[in-house]
Amino acid sequence: MKEWKLIDTERVYHSKYMSLFNDKVMLPTGQKITYTRAELKDFVTVLPIIGNKIVMIEIFRYPANRLSLEIPSGYVENGEEPRECARRELEEEAGYKVGKLRSLGWFNPWTRSIRKAHLFLAEDLTKGTQRPDETEQIEVKLLSTEEIRKKLETNKITHAPTIIALQKYLLMQLDYARR
Amino acid sequence: MKEWKLIDTERVYHSKYMSLFNDKVMLPTGQKITYTRAELKDFVTVLPIIGNKIVMIEIFRYPANRLSLEIPSGYVENGEEPRECARRELEEEAGYKVGKLRSLGWFNPWTRSIRKAHLFLAEDLTKGTQRPDETEQIEVKLLSTEEIRKKLETNKITHAPTIIALQKYLLMQLDYARR
Repeated sequence: MKEWKLIDTERVYHSKYMSLFNDKVMLPTGQKITYTRAELKDFVTVLPIIGNKIVMIEIFRYPANRLSLEIPSGYVENGEEPRECARRELEEEAGYKVGKLRSLGWFNPWTRSIRKAHLFLAEDLTKGTQRPDETEQIEVKLLSTEEIRKKLETNKITHAPTIIALQKYLLMQLDYARR
Repeated sequence: MKEWKLIDTERVYHSKYMSLFNDKVMLPTGQKITYTRAELKDFVTVLPIIGNKIVMIEIFRYPANRLSLEIPSGYVENGEEPRECARRELEEEAGYKVGKLRSLGWFNPWTRSIRKAHLFLAEDLTKGTQRPDETEQIEVKLLSTEEIRKKLETNKITHAPTIIALQKYLLMQLDYARR
């Protein structure tokens, strides 16, 4: 593997959510280019299961100006473990406390950043206290596996982390069904 | 659905790849906040199939400083249709011309932007000419469905668009297998 060599870097944007850097790098060919790299907080996405239903939230997404059907997600705060974050976000957004929390791995949402999205499966839920942020208008919805399958097939779910978690869950279910 | 009301906007960052805006908005509660919104080019991700193998590429990703196992992806250029883009990227990155191209829908990679990622399934492939960008160090790899399944299960694939496309393909395969 031939690595790129960092020559110089400049921070060109900074906010609470994101920093952007123009990295001047040398490619293995010797050519010099500028690559824009982003730094963003990691986040978690939690798939909560009650009986044979999946707990989803319908949340208003401002850039698209529409409601989006998702599972709970949120930024990992400084000093927080992803697992803690998953428990916190599930209670804040959907109003459930988690009994059993199982990691479903992680993925990289954007190649310009090393940001990680951690996936969890949450089971043995009990009622907690929903307390969404001021910016969150959330309605909780329980859906069956069959409803999820149809919504995925007809492109009614467009939130990437939700799609990854739900498809993973369906694959797990189908695999069990074959045994 | 209660929409947010845009009061004012300021562009705080701009490059060839991305613009960032601080939108001052009024929430349905009457409270005013600043929301950082991004504008980015749409992209396509193409899942190429040859016989019973999936064509993947191993590509160097600079921010993570490692090789990543992915399927071909790329920005939709101005004036280009997503389907054209899929054909172009597949030939540029993996060196194959597409016979049959089928849409697998789209998703939204990042909630701060309305950017769309369009997914395609490419079949009836013939050899074309690979011509990667100067920044792309690419090795083409053919994998079986079983190899893909294992790599997904063991978190060896972390590129979100690739995961979504491969999971979708596995679900399609399992569904067929059940009939």
